[in-house]
Amino acid sequence: MSPSTDSLSLTFAALADPTRRAILARLADGPATVKELSAPFDISGPAVTKHLRVLERARLIARGREAQWRPCQLEAAPLKDVAEWTERYRRYWEDRLNRLDEYLKTLQARSERPGHHEEKHDGHRRRTKK
Amino acid sequence: MSPSTDSLSLTFAALADPTRRAILARLADGPATVKELSAPFDISGPAVTKHLRVLERARLIARGREAQWRPCQLEAAPLKDVAEWTERYRRYWEDRLNRLDEYLKTLQARSERPGHHEEKHDGHRRRTKK
Repeated sequence: MSPSTDSLSLTFAALADPTRRAILARLADGPATVKELSAPFDISGPAVTKHLRVLERARLIARGREAQWRPCQLEAAPLKDVAEWTERYRRYWEDRLNRLDEYLKTLQARSERPGHHEEKHDGHRRRTKK
Repeated sequence: MSPSTDSLSLTFAALADPTRRAILARLADGPATVKELSAPFDISGPAVTKHLRVLERARLIARGREAQWRPCQLEAAPLKDVAEWTERYRRYWEDRLNRLDEYLKTLQARSERPGHHEEKHDGHRRRTKK
């Protein structure tokens, strides 16, 4: 399974690394040089350059033309495609969370009123009349 | 740069392949066996099994316990993390699209009314009176 080169796959692959995601988060505050981007990470300049190349190939960043200074800037357009792809699955994770939530509520209701499992159909009224 | 193993990185890496995304799309319709999942793709059963292992490791799918039949089903919870991570960048791609949109409108306005660049302030009325 060699890496896929369609644009959405390139974007997802570029995002599959915490350092690259941290670089994008930094660039969200404004353009930065390789030196500025390297500072917060415990990795070499060449390692940062490698990460930048992956981000650039996925068009998540653009770099200036100046040979010496080449500032990087965020290009968020590919993230729109990620958001749109992911959005199609929203109802699946929401359904799952809703079911989990209902289940937890059932468990809680049972533990708060032990022996009152069947009280839905006016069982509660009958019992208080006793 | 060895692959990162934090859960968001695992999710992004699993999504960086069109076949794996197609498998998730199929599973959104309901559980399926490996044989059913292999059918639409021009790849071998073992290749599909490899893809399923990547998806399973990222907790994007779960597999049944039956040794023979082991149906796969979608687990969308990790996609919620993807959506939340991506959402933080929404204003960046929207800003960019808005700027592009304004620029295109300016270009269009110029090409539709050559020589009438300054007509914003009741310039139109003046023209129809001519």
